[in-house]
Amino acid sequence: MPFKNKNVILAVDPGFDRVGIAVLAQQKNTSILLFSECVRTNPKDTRGQRLLLIGSRLRKIIKKWRPGNLAIETLFFNTNITSAIGVAEARGVIIYEASLVGLTVHEYSPQSIKIAVTGYGKADKTQIETMVKKLVNLPQKTVKRLDDEVDAIALGITHLATKKSI
Amino acid sequence: MPFKNKNVILAVDPGFDRVGIAVLAQQKNTSILLFSECVRTNPKDTRGQRLLLIGSRLRKIIKKWRPGNLAIETLFFNTNITSAIGVAEARGVIIYEASLVGLTVHEYSPQSIKIAVTGYGKADKTQIETMVKKLVNLPQKTVKRLDDEVDAIALGITHLATKKSI
Repeated sequence: MPFKNKNVILAVDPGFDRVGIAVLAQQKNTSILLFSECVRTNPKDTRGQRLLLIGSRLRKIIKKWRPGNLAIETLFFNTNITSAIGVAEARGVIIYEASLVGLTVHEYSPQSIKIAVTGYGKADKTQIETMVKKLVNLPQKTVKRLDDEVDAIALGITHLATKKSI
Repeated sequence: MPFKNKNVILAVDPGFDRVGIAVLAQQKNTSILLFSECVRTNPKDTRGQRLLLIGSRLRKIIKKWRPGNLAIETLFFNTNITSAIGVAEARGVIIYEASLVGLTVHEYSPQSIKIAVTGYGKADKTQIETMVKKLVNLPQKTVKRLDDEVDAIALGITHLATKKSI
């Protein structure tokens, strides 16, 4: 990889069924959304095929946007342990693909993202989306933007805001 | 990758601190151990560096031995949830690296491995090692072979025995 742009952040909300991905850049005091999407894997596919889709999609996005850093949500266990294993496996692949090309990995808890974006650690999905729309210019989509994608954008905003204040 | 050998199995006992890796082949009715090792990651390294070591080591072993299949232990949660997340992340990287080069992934539970190797689902580490030594020709080592490496060999034996009887 010829160059990495330190002002560009790759933000990922990890999952096994759905992975939210956003690429943001810092321009002066503004966070610019360059790209976002939600990668969905097919439950009928094998574990290997699903991880392959996540990793290869991420590889393409890194190759195109050349971010200098990866921001990723930390994993908290909820009641469903089986799905948590899948999320952790996907998270491993995401961190691995980023590390393969030398990205620095930054981890943020869901709560710290909520606080950074809304000022409230227990904000719900709607509150997060409302604030995300105020903080970055979200392009119109013909289909509804999934929570995972919004969460990835919120994570990117959190990273840029946190780094800015250091 | 120019070719894969369907008779060669890559067996991995996944972990974040230690990963047991074994390569075995089937020759007539005998399981032959071609290679085994225990990869250890440094707790002082970042999560990304540790996953990178696991994935890149596996990539080299696959490139050298060209197995057709991956056998990997399924993950069971014990009391330590935090370490389970690390193991699942490593497991994701292992399945991902194998899938990148088209290996077929086979999962085995710890209990099924114990039954296949010792005939007893609650066998301890010593019983497993004793049987593994009877079933394959283990090369002498100057340092003690770690449980993780023995477990990976047991997993490879299980896969070959299971596939043979199908």
